[in-house]
Amino acid sequence: MTERPSITPVILSGGSGTRLWPVSRNERPKQFIALTAAQTMFELTLARLDGLADATAPVIVANAAHAELIAQQGRPGMTIILEPAARNTAPAIALAAIALEAQDNAMLVMPSDHVVTDVPAFHAAIERARPLVADGWLVTFGIEPDAPETGFGYIALGDELTQGVHKVARFIEKPDLERATAMLAQGGHVWNAGIFLFSARAFLEALAAHRPDILAAVREAMEKGTREGGTIRPDAAAFTASPSDSIDYAVMEHSDKVACVPVSMGWSDVGSWDALYALAAKDAAGNALHGASHAIDASGCLIRSDGPAVTVVGASDLIVIATGDEVLVLPRGHSQDVRKAVAALAERSGKP
Amino acid sequence: MTERPSITPVILSGGSGTRLWPVSRNERPKQFIALTAAQTMFELTLARLDGLADATAPVIVANAAHAELIAQQGRPGMTIILEPAARNTAPAIALAAIALEAQDNAMLVMPSDHVVTDVPAFHAAIERARPLVADGWLVTFGIEPDAPETGFGYIALGDELTQGVHKVARFIEKPDLERATAMLAQGGHVWNAGIFLFSARAFLEALAAHRPDILAAVREAMEKGTREGGTIRPDAAAFTASPSDSIDYAVMEHSDKVACVPVSMGWSDVGSWDALYALAAKDAAGNALHGASHAIDASGCLIRSDGPAVTVVGASDLIVIATGDEVLVLPRGHSQDVRKAVAALAERSGKP
Repeated sequence: MTERPSITPVILSGGSGTRLWPVSRNERPKQFIALTAAQTMFELTLARLDGLADATAPVIVANAAHAELIAQQGRPGMTIILEPAARNTAPAIALAAIALEAQDNAMLVMPSDHVVTDVPAFHAAIERARPLVADGWLVTFGIEPDAPETGFGYIALGDELTQGVHKVARFIEKPDLERATAMLAQGGHVWNAGIFLFSARAFLEALAAHRPDILAAVREAMEKGTREGGTIRPDAAAFTASPSDSIDYAVMEHSDKVACVPVSMGWSDVGSWDALYALAAKDAAGNALHGASHAIDASGCLIRSDGPAVTVVGASDLIVIATGDEVLVLPRGHSQDVRKAVAALAERSGKP
Repeated sequence: MTERPSITPVILSGGSGTRLWPVSRNERPKQFIALTAAQTMFELTLARLDGLADATAPVIVANAAHAELIAQQGRPGMTIILEPAARNTAPAIALAAIALEAQDNAMLVMPSDHVVTDVPAFHAAIERARPLVADGWLVTFGIEPDAPETGFGYIALGDELTQGVHKVARFIEKPDLERATAMLAQGGHVWNAGIFLFSARAFLEALAAHRPDILAAVREAMEKGTREGGTIRPDAAAFTASPSDSIDYAVMEHSDKVACVPVSMGWSDVGSWDALYALAAKDAAGNALHGASHAIDASGCLIRSDGPAVTVVGASDLIVIATGDEVLVLPRGHSQDVRKAVAALAERSGKP
């Protein structure tokens, strides 16, 4: 592998998040919805790669149920690996790594449902990471925190390896507020955004070392799978037999050769309606309106409708989200409680 | 006319109120909606007459656009007078009075969109009023106030004419809060609920004395109108030529022979979502739920849907009303602001 390998983006689209219910559903999760712009999160993720030097067409690892959405929103030349079941990120990335094993490219692994507003900063961070790939480093990108967020894992930065690249001292689970506040004050801690750069070989070697069971199952799934044009369908029985685990737990936390590039790039995981409100354009009264939404004497509200017209009168700091069949109302700052609404709905309907 | 005339109920259904928007619309106003019970307000108004002694089938005065709704929700034997245009209560009641002029019955005039929870108290009040009709009194029923409401007109009671029946001292326009509080403290003041008992002859004589222009227009409309079975269609041009005025302004405030029967009968005009919340059954957290409505960690909310399922999480004292095409969210206590939403909608759509 050269000092400066080409990059093959690997976009993970396995999520079926319900944190943005009722807009995000299992059948059309967040990444396939236009939440922050006219384009969907998935389309924005692809667009974020435009202008990246020496990059190939991407590999998309997606839920087989979303094949049509991927085809509609994707681009010519992409490779699509359709997961027959969700097994978290370690098996998903292993699918792509095995598909790319014969090449010398660096894999740039990214979720499909994040926002990055400063794309040049993202590309610059990738360039800082690129030289380490040939030496077998597993590089992660860490977001410089600007608030004591408790919803993300953190990475404690160790010694600087090269300009702007640190060895990872350790991974830290989602902290409580006190711990998060301390880390923010102390510095040297960044958010784990689930964005990685490494060679397929380095990843597969680490997986073989720490989770050979996952690797074996995924290898069997790829060997028994089918390929038709750019679409790979791993064998369902073999893949389903893989343990489910995240790349962090399965590989990153156990590997010695893990580096981190801290970066400030206007990143958000858009992980809640509150996060979307923070990102959204707002009127003079602080209302963020999307779709058939109207605010009268209201302030600080996020109002979004893809269904009936919504009118909020005289209320402050509410989140109101309407679709054709569901309307959600909750105070801003409480959007983690969406899960309670989803759980209650599942209980009522007998389905998730 | 005898001392104790028979009663012909006259139900006024001309309203097209938007105070309960988005459920109440011009095409299906409040009286034709099941708001407080499984029955519509109109059906409840008819049911309220069951058991009233010596009562005939009712006369319904309604907007011609609602003929089908009246037919669906009405009862056999009723007479329907279809107004070709809305001209307020004085012309509407004049239509019925002219239709009933040849009879000696007392007209019991009632809105079609109020709630009365204590029907025996209502019937007892009617019996107290009934003997005055033959003497040409215009009797109004006054609701004993239990709060300093500023949304109703008041009636100042004068001397007692017979047991439980007072001469009206004067009618008082909707007061400000200070005035309403003073009247409540002072006693002797009741809410004008728009319910009346009088003979057709007495009403028409008073109208002839005070608003002969209205009477002339309505007489012409009835003379030129058509009757088919129980349905009377006044002449549109003649009726439309009538001035628009309320019975209070046109007749009651100018007549000397006006009496009032004070009554406590669990009356509400259900004139706002707040009023409906006050009437509604509530769960332990004070939430009033109707239709596909769900409250999670919420309290004091009125949630109603005839359309998409509505879930309110973690909010207090909200009104959330959903139909298939409109969702309204506003804080409890502010439901008079519905008119702002309706006005904004009219501006957007170019129609009321």
